[in-house]
Amino acid sequence: MASSHPEVEPVLIVHGGAGPIVKISQTRVDSKLKGVKDAGKAGYKVLCEGGSALDAVQAAVMVMEENPEFNAGRGSRPTALGDVEMDAMIMDGSSLQVGSVACVKNIHHPIELARMVMDKTDHCMLVGVGANLFARQMGFPLVPTEELVREEHRKDAREHTKYTDAVTELLNPGKDDSHDTVGAVALDAQGNVAFATSTGGIRSQLPGRVGDSPLVGCGGYADNDIGAVTCTGHGESFMKCTIPTRILNKMEQGVSVADATDEALTYMKRRVNGTGGCIVIGRDGQTAVKCTDNRMMPWAIFQGDKVKFGINQGEQFEGTCISQV
Amino acid sequence: MASSHPEVEPVLIVHGGAGPIVKISQTRVDSKLKGVKDAGKAGYKVLCEGGSALDAVQAAVMVMEENPEFNAGRGSRPTALGDVEMDAMIMDGSSLQVGSVACVKNIHHPIELARMVMDKTDHCMLVGVGANLFARQMGFPLVPTEELVREEHRKDAREHTKYTDAVTELLNPGKDDSHDTVGAVALDAQGNVAFATSTGGIRSQLPGRVGDSPLVGCGGYADNDIGAVTCTGHGESFMKCTIPTRILNKMEQGVSVADATDEALTYMKRRVNGTGGCIVIGRDGQTAVKCTDNRMMPWAIFQGDKVKFGINQGEQFEGTCISQV
Repeated sequence: MASSHPEVEPVLIVHGGAGPIVKISQTRVDSKLKGVKDAGKAGYKVLCEGGSALDAVQAAVMVMEENPEFNAGRGSRPTALGDVEMDAMIMDGSSLQVGSVACVKNIHHPIELARMVMDKTDHCMLVGVGANLFARQMGFPLVPTEELVREEHRKDAREHTKYTDAVTELLNPGKDDSHDTVGAVALDAQGNVAFATSTGGIRSQLPGRVGDSPLVGCGGYADNDIGAVTCTGHGESFMKCTIPTRILNKMEQGVSVADATDEALTYMKRRVNGTGGCIVIGRDGQTAVKCTDNRMMPWAIFQGDKVKFGINQGEQFEGTCISQV
Repeated sequence: MASSHPEVEPVLIVHGGAGPIVKISQTRVDSKLKGVKDAGKAGYKVLCEGGSALDAVQAAVMVMEENPEFNAGRGSRPTALGDVEMDAMIMDGSSLQVGSVACVKNIHHPIELARMVMDKTDHCMLVGVGANLFARQMGFPLVPTEELVREEHRKDAREHTKYTDAVTELLNPGKDDSHDTVGAVALDAQGNVAFATSTGGIRSQLPGRVGDSPLVGCGGYADNDIGAVTCTGHGESFMKCTIPTRILNKMEQGVSVADATDEALTYMKRRVNGTGGCIVIGRDGQTAVKCTDNRMMPWAIFQGDKVKFGINQGEQFEGTCISQV
């Protein structure tokens, strides 16, 4: 293949959002694990067929946006006004091109719109009414808000209207099994890295609130010279600490992917008491999946002929990709 | 003073936006220099009276938002639809608290609203209609769009409707003397750093376009452990390279403020062909004011009893603060 990079082994990681550690039924656990494996499969298929990291992460995230199990697309949370406002971002580590949308309403696939911001405009980010205007120009069908929120989340929002309660629940072990934000990172055979992320927000957030997900360097970053990161958790904490650029900077200085990720999450906990998780790929194919110690997060790594996956702290299952892809 | 930091000498830097190098009349030069000195004076007064870096940068930026010479507040540029959408951000280097607004309309002082997002909500960023809803709740008077755009910029926007032309003009020497984004960084006597930035966008941008200014790590960053940075120029380039965190990371590794800033701007030029400028303060009071080599930028540094200022590359004037503050 005509490329300055020697051919490398493709890798793809997906996560389905970090949330509080709660006792959920085996049915829900299985549903979440199936969800991340389905998404990973779609992305890894792109890589195995010689496709780009960029197309792979988009494919993976689109599958999760379709799955109401996850807080993105069809599983979004209503704002304090009962509306649904979604954010998404995608980044190409070869060109550093970024596409991002925030506070967009009534579409199924915010990540697809973010990709179009990257490909079809001179901008990196469109928000609010302007983002919806662009979606209309790009031919996105209007989707009723009802299709983007599960009835249980709407009921939940009616009963709990205070955002601070939602954050407290999100940050502490409790009844709520709400998981926040989905994401994927990938390394393709040509040595390109990319990430994609999509979110349906935090319950009862103020209208117009934007968290880390659509913000470059906060919700994720990708650079072929180093690697790719994407995050999930308490968005404001990731913003204050710009965790993805922090992780990649440590990696650039020679710290391992795992140590750089641990260091950044420890730093975030110490400095702003933040919680959440990250998935990281180095340009050499090293991977890390990490959460702060009070989080659980469904994840899956596709590499070679293996898929590894898990949801609880320290847990890891393994299967073969032959059955997965 | 009860503080863990030994008392340090306060510093404040302001800039009035990087723009293409053009021949402008001495009257315009004087007006821009007077504008940054007036803004710096307001911020430095806060520092000299024992106020915080956070209050100082806000005071400086508010003065520039009032001055139609600058592209922020009353000097904003219309979008492709003739509307005015403004962005602003402020950050406190002691707590890493961030307040940001994007795509907000019909208010005089976006930086004041950004500060309220920081002080009065659990969020870091509000955008679009949600940001305006919050402004209304906070008692901001509604300002007609006409008060936020100079007639010459409205005429210019009617004659030149293509955003790509606006960017080309912005990035290359030409007739247009449009300068982009205002900002300030400060170090107070207690060793706290902060930055603030505010912008009225780029002419003919798509509705909903958000550049680097309101994005933490892209338009600026402040951390008491290292220093504070804010940027101006082609927003998309600053976003792709997350320049402020890049500069602060180099400084954390022991690189001087000047060298870290030069390195980041050179990197941005090489990697994404980006242009613009930065103002930087280290926790020890070192300062840097830098532009890529095809830019001019009005700036002023207030430190001790001196004010230094300039607008053209390599140029520096000096006065005494006694006459300035």
